[in-house]
Amino acid sequence: MTLDPPVMKGALAPVVMPFKADGTPDADRLIDHCRRLLAVDCGLAVFGTNSEGNSLSVEEKVDLIDRLVEAGLDPARMMPGTGACALPDAIRLTAHAVRRGCHGALVLPPFYYKDVTDEGLYAAIAGLIEGVGDARTRLYLYHIPKVAVVGFSLPLIERLVKDFPTVVVGMKDSTGDEAHSRRIAEALPGWGLFVGSEMYLANAMAFGAVGTISALCNVNAPDIVALTKGWNGPAAADLQERCRTVRGTFMQYPVIAAMKEAIASGLGDPQWRHLRPPLMALSEEQRTALARDLAAIGFRVPLPEAA
Amino acid sequence: MTLDPPVMKGALAPVVMPFKADGTPDADRLIDHCRRLLAVDCGLAVFGTNSEGNSLSVEEKVDLIDRLVEAGLDPARMMPGTGACALPDAIRLTAHAVRRGCHGALVLPPFYYKDVTDEGLYAAIAGLIEGVGDARTRLYLYHIPKVAVVGFSLPLIERLVKDFPTVVVGMKDSTGDEAHSRRIAEALPGWGLFVGSEMYLANAMAFGAVGTISALCNVNAPDIVALTKGWNGPAAADLQERCRTVRGTFMQYPVIAAMKEAIASGLGDPQWRHLRPPLMALSEEQRTALARDLAAIGFRVPLPEAA
Repeated sequence: MTLDPPVMKGALAPVVMPFKADGTPDADRLIDHCRRLLAVDCGLAVFGTNSEGNSLSVEEKVDLIDRLVEAGLDPARMMPGTGACALPDAIRLTAHAVRRGCHGALVLPPFYYKDVTDEGLYAAIAGLIEGVGDARTRLYLYHIPKVAVVGFSLPLIERLVKDFPTVVVGMKDSTGDEAHSRRIAEALPGWGLFVGSEMYLANAMAFGAVGTISALCNVNAPDIVALTKGWNGPAAADLQERCRTVRGTFMQYPVIAAMKEAIASGLGDPQWRHLRPPLMALSEEQRTALARDLAAIGFRVPLPEAA
Repeated sequence: MTLDPPVMKGALAPVVMPFKADGTPDADRLIDHCRRLLAVDCGLAVFGTNSEGNSLSVEEKVDLIDRLVEAGLDPARMMPGTGACALPDAIRLTAHAVRRGCHGALVLPPFYYKDVTDEGLYAAIAGLIEGVGDARTRLYLYHIPKVAVVGFSLPLIERLVKDFPTVVVGMKDSTGDEAHSRRIAEALPGWGLFVGSEMYLANAMAFGAVGTISALCNVNAPDIVALTKGWNGPAAADLQERCRTVRGTFMQYPVIAAMKEAIASGLGDPQWRHLRPPLMALSEEQRTALARDLAAIGFRVPLPEAA
C-alpha cells in the first residue's frame, strides 16, 4: 500500500481549547495558539480529547472551524475531531470540515453504547462516509479505549481500509501500548498510523508510524516535532528522553488543566486557566506544585509568541 | 422531605425509537407507541438509553418533543432524556423540554471524560440548571454506570438535592443493585427515586422508591404498571415473578433489538425492526430463537392498539 491519497505526517496537537469567563469558546485565543503551533510545524488536531472536543456542541465546532479558516490558517494542516455518539452529528461536522478544506477528520466511534459489535461500528463508519458523500473525505480512526471505552479492533480497521481505501487513510492509536501500535503498523504497512503518545515515538517511527498526535504538543511541540523528523538521527535518544520527562511531569496532574496552567503562566494570561465542566482548573495547591515540578526539570512552555 | 414539588410515580418506559427505512426517526410510529403506553398508564421517558437517545442529534430530539406534544400527548407524562457530553447540548434540550411543559428531564452526567471529580460533575449540573434558568425545571439524575461509566455518587446526589431542592427532584438508579437503591432511599426519604429494573420492584416500592423506569415497559407495561400499584397487594408475588421471567427472556438478546423485534412481530410491522448504528437489528437466527423463547413463556406483546 502506498501513501495515496496523501496522509499527514509529523506531530499534531489536540489543540487545547481556551474559554472566555462566560464559558464560551474563545476563538481569538484559539487562533493565536494554533499560529504558535503552526510556527513550529505542528499540525492542528482541533476538537480532540485534550481539546475538550466532546464538551463542545457541534455548532460551536462548526463555528470554530470557520473562524480558524477565515483567520487564514491553512486547513491542509487541520484534522478536527468529528466523531460523535449520534451519526447525524458526526456527518454534519465531518461534512463541514471537508467543505472547508480540512486535510482530514479524526473520528471517534459512537461511544455511548458499550458492548457493540464490530458489525455495528462498521455500519456507523460506513453510514458516516455515505452521509458525508464527498470524495474528498479522509478519515483517521480514533482509538482511545481508556476514555471512549468503545474502540476499533484490528479486523474492523482492516475491513474499513479494504472497503474504503481512499477514505479511511489512517488512525490515531491512543492505547499507549507500543506493541499494539506495532501490530497495526505491521498489518497495514504504509498506512497513516499516528501514535497517541510520544513516549515510544522514536520506536514507532522506526516501525512505520507517520507521526504522533499528542496532548503534550500543546506545550512541548518543538521537541516532539524534532523527534518525528530526527527519530533516527544523532539527537534522537536525547529528544526521546526529554519528551518522556516532560510528559511524565505533566501527567502527574489532570493533564488538560496542567497544560492550560502552563500556557496561562507562560503567557501571563490567566484566562487560559478556564476549563468547561465536567473538567476543572487546577487548584491553587496543584498550580504551585506544577510550577515547582516544571522548574525542577528546567521546563518552560517553549512556544514562540504568535506573529 | 415531602413530595413538593410533585414527582412522577409509577412505571415509565424509555420509549423505543422507531426509524424509517432511510434511518430518520419515525415520529408517527413513535406517537402511536406512546399512545399505547399511556393507555395502560405508563409514562414516557423518551430519549433514554433504550430509546437510542444518544444516537439522536439534539435537533432531532427537539423536533420529536414538538411532534409528541402537538399530537396531543400529555407533556406532564413525559420525562425526556436530555443529558449530553456537551453542556450547551444539555441546556438546549432541557430548556426545550421545560418550555414544552414536560414534567421533568432525565439527565445523564457528561459521560465522555472518565475519572472526573464530583466537583466537576456538580459544576456540570449546576451549569445546566443555571443555563436553563427556568424555575419550572425538574431534573432526575440518571445513574447508569455500566453504560455511561461516569455516575452520580451518593455524596454528590445529596449535595445537589441540598443546593437545588426544587430542581433535583429525583433520579433513576440503573445499577441493577437493590442494596444501592435502598441506600439512596434511606438517605433521601420521600425523594423521587426510580429503579431502573423491575427485577426488585416490589421490594423497592416497600423501601420507598416511587416507581421504575424500565426498558421492559415497552413490551410488558401492563404487568409492570400493575406491580407499581399493587406491590403490597395479593397479586404482587405473582406479578413480580412474571416480570422477572419476561425480563430474563428478553435479556438473553441485545435488549433494544429484541424489544423492537417483539413489537414488529406483534404489530405485523417490519419497519419497527430498524435500529440506528452502532446498534443492529436481530439476525434471522436470533429472531427465530426469540419467538421460540417468548412462546415458551406464553408471552405476547400485550399493549393494546392505539385508539
